[in-house]
Amino acid sequence: MDLISYCDKLAHRSRSASRDLARASTAQKNRWLLAAGDGLVHRAKDILAANAKDVALAEATHLPAAQLDRLRLDESRVIGIAKGLLEIASLSDPVGRVLDERTRPNGLKIQKVAVPLGVILFIYESRPNVTVDAAGLCVKSGNAVILRGGKESLHTNQALYAVLRDSLEGVQLPPDAVQLVTTPDHAAVGHLLTLDRWIDLVIPRGGESLIRRVAGEARMPVLKHYQGNCHVYVDRAADIDMALAILLNAKCQRPGVCNAAESLLVHADVAAAFLPRAGSALRERGVEIRGCPETCRLIPEAKPATDADHAAEFLDLILSVKVVDSLEAAVDHIARFGSQHTEAIITNDPRAAERFTAAVDSAAVMVNASTRFNDGYEFGLGAEVGISTDKFHARGPCGLQELCSYKYIVHGAGQVRE
Amino acid sequence: MDLISYCDKLAHRSRSASRDLARASTAQKNRWLLAAGDGLVHRAKDILAANAKDVALAEATHLPAAQLDRLRLDESRVIGIAKGLLEIASLSDPVGRVLDERTRPNGLKIQKVAVPLGVILFIYESRPNVTVDAAGLCVKSGNAVILRGGKESLHTNQALYAVLRDSLEGVQLPPDAVQLVTTPDHAAVGHLLTLDRWIDLVIPRGGESLIRRVAGEARMPVLKHYQGNCHVYVDRAADIDMALAILLNAKCQRPGVCNAAESLLVHADVAAAFLPRAGSALRERGVEIRGCPETCRLIPEAKPATDADHAAEFLDLILSVKVVDSLEAAVDHIARFGSQHTEAIITNDPRAAERFTAAVDSAAVMVNASTRFNDGYEFGLGAEVGISTDKFHARGPCGLQELCSYKYIVHGAGQVRE
Repeated sequence: MDLISYCDKLAHRSRSASRDLARASTAQKNRWLLAAGDGLVHRAKDILAANAKDVALAEATHLPAAQLDRLRLDESRVIGIAKGLLEIASLSDPVGRVLDERTRPNGLKIQKVAVPLGVILFIYESRPNVTVDAAGLCVKSGNAVILRGGKESLHTNQALYAVLRDSLEGVQLPPDAVQLVTTPDHAAVGHLLTLDRWIDLVIPRGGESLIRRVAGEARMPVLKHYQGNCHVYVDRAADIDMALAILLNAKCQRPGVCNAAESLLVHADVAAAFLPRAGSALRERGVEIRGCPETCRLIPEAKPATDADHAAEFLDLILSVKVVDSLEAAVDHIARFGSQHTEAIITNDPRAAERFTAAVDSAAVMVNASTRFNDGYEFGLGAEVGISTDKFHARGPCGLQELCSYKYIVHGAGQVRE
Repeated sequence: MDLISYCDKLAHRSRSASRDLARASTAQKNRWLLAAGDGLVHRAKDILAANAKDVALAEATHLPAAQLDRLRLDESRVIGIAKGLLEIASLSDPVGRVLDERTRPNGLKIQKVAVPLGVILFIYESRPNVTVDAAGLCVKSGNAVILRGGKESLHTNQALYAVLRDSLEGVQLPPDAVQLVTTPDHAAVGHLLTLDRWIDLVIPRGGESLIRRVAGEARMPVLKHYQGNCHVYVDRAADIDMALAILLNAKCQRPGVCNAAESLLVHADVAAAFLPRAGSALRERGVEIRGCPETCRLIPEAKPATDADHAAEFLDLILSVKVVDSLEAAVDHIARFGSQHTEAIITNDPRAAERFTAAVDSAAVMVNASTRFNDGYEFGLGAEVGISTDKFHARGPCGLQELCSYKYIVHGAGQVRE
């Protein structure tokens, strides 16, 4: 079978499965999540054997150590993946939720009801846990999913997929609800991205270059999570101790993630009180500071910052710093250099907080809290497929609800339009 | 100034204006809507003079009569346009609406708040009223708008635009909140569609070819309203009189619009009772019937239907008809040939209604009501920019709420992440 028919058939089978899956009951979907979790644990040996093949190949091709670590599974990681499915089972079903309801003067009863999007194509890099997480989130939200993992984890993904598929059959859900693209041919992705007739959404999960390539080629919508150049703004009315604790948490607790802080803005009135203390605390934690002239004056070891530094997502122990004359100047700086992901203000002035949250146009705006809280679990929304930096459809953490569309269901008694 | 800098500056000015507009109060936006409505009425003479120029040019170039009619204004049409702004003023402001709210165990208070999308590019054909409607809806929802009307109505649009812009200044809103593309050069649209850095959404309003062209070129999201191949399904448990009244309304009341019925499906058990009556009522109204063999047997003047007939959006007095053996067969037919716009079931069996509304994946599914009700006004949502056939972001009627995104605002007391 040639590649184009392979992709067409795959997508078409997903579309068919999605019609049944959209009507599956919550109980049935949860039974699958539990059965699949169980299956993963019981078949851990097969999964680890497949994973060992991938790891051996990866070692032979000298995959970087960090990637190798993400690829490698052991029994406790398999149990962790299975636990993820149990957590998804515990989340409430987004399908069928009545989002709005109204009765019109002519008696028509109008309901706006959440429905699945349909078919989701998931493209991701080497972490094999995404295979299971993505399948769990998609099926729980009533969506069929086509999984396309990295070639480094193909054997692992096939072993995980075998469990997912068998357990779909076990609970009488359509087995094509979850499909795995097994051809290593890169052209498969290119062709799948043209099939907007059968695929409703693409979610690329990986580096910015992957996301940009997918967004450029896809004919269907793409859920994008680009970079996070997150700012902490220390207002003139800030509690300095609180500001320091939040800055250190936002910058240092996990510097390689999108909701870590990359830029610090400090009101001129508190710069002399705050920056020297912040400088030495950051230095202790190995953070390099790139600052404006006033910052360099207050923190002698700071290097001068360029515009590129202010715009950068370092994902590393580097921080750009600027002293600003007003809250409005902070907002303007964020509008110019930020990525609309997450910003925080530290202030004891409720009016300043209100001006900041109203004026900053980011997925999440924090008052007296770390940027690191922009996360589906931390927001109490449950597991997520990513943090969207788009404003269309979904913004911020994307979980089960964000994988849904809606339809209007209208009940009448014979009404016609005059 | 070359075309590219012209477009860049226009889009960049819109982006700046959008930042102020996003924070404008409801009262200020409503003052503008009232002032603009007032201005249109007071300056009707200027508008009609400009319109006369367009009409004269259109007559000279032999524009078709229907288009000429849509282009031509008189005083009562200008008053009608102004009234549209007053209606928008009466709708509630979607910006700042708290969509969700939760307090986390760690004390973080999380609010999900509606915010404008930002900058909207509106591309439309010859009706000049869209200039005013689109501006009113965008500004009320806090969005800056770039208007690109048809070249046939350029003088009229400029006269309308002068009123809109002057009244923005009059109420201290940023005048660049509404901008008009005045160059007749087609390449302007092409370039604007690449400016995803400054433009958040494109709304093409016109025929399918315009929408497909825009969707193909745009780098930002596009709100699409493709065709409506709407179905009426007469169930075995239908009230035959009600079914006939709804069918005639859905097909004949305004056959040229997207929510008019194009296809009729009849359960075999009621075909003999329903189709002959429907056939003669439709014939009286000049409707041509293209049916399956059983339909042709029951309605002698029906012509045989092809697959193309079942898939067609006729926008005319033509109806495709098929007799089906079950509700599920009706659902399958709709899945195969429909356009996911609007379908109706006529039935007195609540379980059949439930099966149909659950299984049919369309923007609106009607029970015992005409397809013609899928409309922002009829749903009580107020004026709309179109009826989306997409499932992403917004589906069905798109009004003020659908022109918004949201952001998360999080209030803490110094929380950091463990």
